[in-house]
Amino acid sequence: MRIIKVTEEVSLARDVDTGNETQQASVDNILAQVREEGDQALKKLTEQFDGAALENLLVTKEEMDDAYNEVDDEVLEALRQAALNIREFHERQTRQSWMVTKEDGTMLGQKIIPLDSVGVYVPGGKASYPSTIMMNVIPAQVAGVENIVMTSPPDKNGNLNPAVLVTAAELGVKTIVKAGGAQAVAALAYGTETVPKVDKIVGPGNIFVALAKRAVFGQVDIDMIAGPSEVVVLADERARPEYIAADLLSQAEHDEMASAVLVTPSETLAQMTASEIERQVKELPRKDIAEASIKDYGAIYLTETMEEAIAAVNKLAPEHLEILTLNPHDQLGKIKHAGAIFLGQYSPEPVGDYFAGPNHVLPTNGTARFSSPLNVDDFTKKSSIISYSKEAFHRDAAHITALARLEGLEAHARSIDIRTEGKKSE
Amino acid sequence: MRIIKVTEEVSLARDVDTGNETQQASVDNILAQVREEGDQALKKLTEQFDGAALENLLVTKEEMDDAYNEVDDEVLEALRQAALNIREFHERQTRQSWMVTKEDGTMLGQKIIPLDSVGVYVPGGKASYPSTIMMNVIPAQVAGVENIVMTSPPDKNGNLNPAVLVTAAELGVKTIVKAGGAQAVAALAYGTETVPKVDKIVGPGNIFVALAKRAVFGQVDIDMIAGPSEVVVLADERARPEYIAADLLSQAEHDEMASAVLVTPSETLAQMTASEIERQVKELPRKDIAEASIKDYGAIYLTETMEEAIAAVNKLAPEHLEILTLNPHDQLGKIKHAGAIFLGQYSPEPVGDYFAGPNHVLPTNGTARFSSPLNVDDFTKKSSIISYSKEAFHRDAAHITALARLEGLEAHARSIDIRTEGKKSE
Repeated sequence: MRIIKVTEEVSLARDVDTGNETQQASVDNILAQVREEGDQALKKLTEQFDGAALENLLVTKEEMDDAYNEVDDEVLEALRQAALNIREFHERQTRQSWMVTKEDGTMLGQKIIPLDSVGVYVPGGKASYPSTIMMNVIPAQVAGVENIVMTSPPDKNGNLNPAVLVTAAELGVKTIVKAGGAQAVAALAYGTETVPKVDKIVGPGNIFVALAKRAVFGQVDIDMIAGPSEVVVLADERARPEYIAADLLSQAEHDEMASAVLVTPSETLAQMTASEIERQVKELPRKDIAEASIKDYGAIYLTETMEEAIAAVNKLAPEHLEILTLNPHDQLGKIKHAGAIFLGQYSPEPVGDYFAGPNHVLPTNGTARFSSPLNVDDFTKKSSIISYSKEAFHRDAAHITALARLEGLEAHARSIDIRTEGKKSE
Repeated sequence: MRIIKVTEEVSLARDVDTGNETQQASVDNILAQVREEGDQALKKLTEQFDGAALENLLVTKEEMDDAYNEVDDEVLEALRQAALNIREFHERQTRQSWMVTKEDGTMLGQKIIPLDSVGVYVPGGKASYPSTIMMNVIPAQVAGVENIVMTSPPDKNGNLNPAVLVTAAELGVKTIVKAGGAQAVAALAYGTETVPKVDKIVGPGNIFVALAKRAVFGQVDIDMIAGPSEVVVLADERARPEYIAADLLSQAEHDEMASAVLVTPSETLAQMTASEIERQVKELPRKDIAEASIKDYGAIYLTETMEEAIAAVNKLAPEHLEILTLNPHDQLGKIKHAGAIFLGQYSPEPVGDYFAGPNHVLPTNGTARFSSPLNVDDFTKKSSIISYSKEAFHRDAAHITALARLEGLEAHARSIDIRTEGKKSE
């Protein structure tokens, strides 16, 4: 991996695929079909894209039960413990509606309630993604969302991956639609005879899913459109290069666009880590992907001091940040921009990806400057409450009309005046 | 105003102007110019669009001081009291970072911190919008945002409206840029020699501002792109038709696309309100706008029962909801979708637009189903914290590798294994 002395700007920003005109036209066409023809279009498109001729768009109770036979006890136990941890962490994020009551009789407040319904997109293909299901479904459940609709593309035989079904069953997801791509997003956004319309769509997907989410945004809410994944390791000379190399490679194996970066003031560590990466990468099943990622988007940034290294991290604003220094808590207060911060040598990123409790849906591509991990707030909404008393109204009426007239909005002022006219004439 | 018996679907959704290709091309061109040429482009474009040849892009301290001579004491007093109320309400929304420490040495938490910098766009033109400044700046200040940059288009003489300057001065805004349109958004998103780059851009604007915000989204965060304004009044036979008419008209005067709707089970009230609107609208300075809005987007929905009326309100999911019933608090629990809820006859919408404290930047066009009023959370972001102990790590390692391998991510598993190898060989 290249070692670069940090002198000026560093950035993780990569040009993300935003689709071409052909893809956009295809998505628009699919959205229109599902909107107009509902289930019929959904079945037709699933046959076309996934090769599955479905009679029933929904997963049955029997399919859910049968899936348990296909999943190892060891995996089931791990899934259950992970779900417990994730639920516990997200339960600490819940908030209550609140109000202030004033002596003049006024009441002001915020009503905070869950969204009515949420759709969770789960990618299909050969790999299964139980962790995606947990990280998207559990925060919605903790928020109190009553209707959760999951959707995932079936294989050619019309089946979903057993681990996906078991994870959904463990979480209590009842409605699972066998559909993927833009057609699944369309079904969630518009509703069909079988698929309930939702208020928000979350979950990762390919470019067609991303384009479809963008297209229906406004009609429904969506989560962020994730870019390629990234990790930055901030380390001093005490850190172990073989750990750092393993952690960087765990990011690099995701895809060729993934970015794995070490920032350190230690030249020795920089060189040892570079060697370790060369050694470890050769043994990986996803070696080709990891090598491409390391070559194109990997880097070791060498700084003069730890302060400079921290400044570089804040400029990078990584999705994942590991701090591998003698006392990692010392640096925590100085980190301003990172999606998730992993402290110390026993907190490699996979601990958070799967298990510890915090969400693995994180801001990518430098957006940690202004975005947050997926969390319970994302599945709630607020309404302001304003209950003015007669006393407060008459006290403030002149101020309100002064401001309305300053802005040239006379009818605003009159909706106040009409209520004070009686008083004026007294 | 037309009286419609509610039988089926009701909706507030209007087709919002999303710009045409010429406008998009113009915005793209402006963004590129400002990105490449900075201040020089900003001055050139301000001369071109606003007719102002500026030497200095920033408002000076002297201009701020002079503006006070142009603002009435009555207005100043109203501004100050409104700012106090808005600040007090938003201060109740602040949140602390939190953590959980477990007996095994693990620490998990959420670090919640303000954004570094925020840009606030303030529309120009003949009217001045002090309330826009307060509603956008104060939540950012309360969140703890250190750098707030305001921008607003100057008049032909290069001046900003005195009320705008005084409001900014009262709030302590130091950096005010004389620029509007897409060029102002570009300056905030990319930074120029004079204008600091920000992390988030908020505030309303015309179609060019909206297109520019959409274009820079991802590079920076943006607030929602506001649609036309709307109010729904939910009333029973006890409500006063002249109040309702005045309140509906205060919304209708905003613009021709604004929507003002009464939902009631009382036919008498429906008819009396319709007459009152006819009477009151004639006396308004912005009569033409209000009449067009009432004709195209106004409606009185008549229901059989109050329950049906509430169901209709939840379908409409209005930006503003006034509840004018005998005991408005009785209905509050049943309202699921509304940006701001105004209870009782002394809480007409302008009380909230200007003064009470809650934010007037609200979800429009039915998006209250899933969006919230602008609030302090919008100016903060979260980072997850994961600090696993050696004990916890070894306890959970097998679970984590089981899940990683289930998803086919071998390098993830190895970043765990490399840390347990020593233990295994013990």
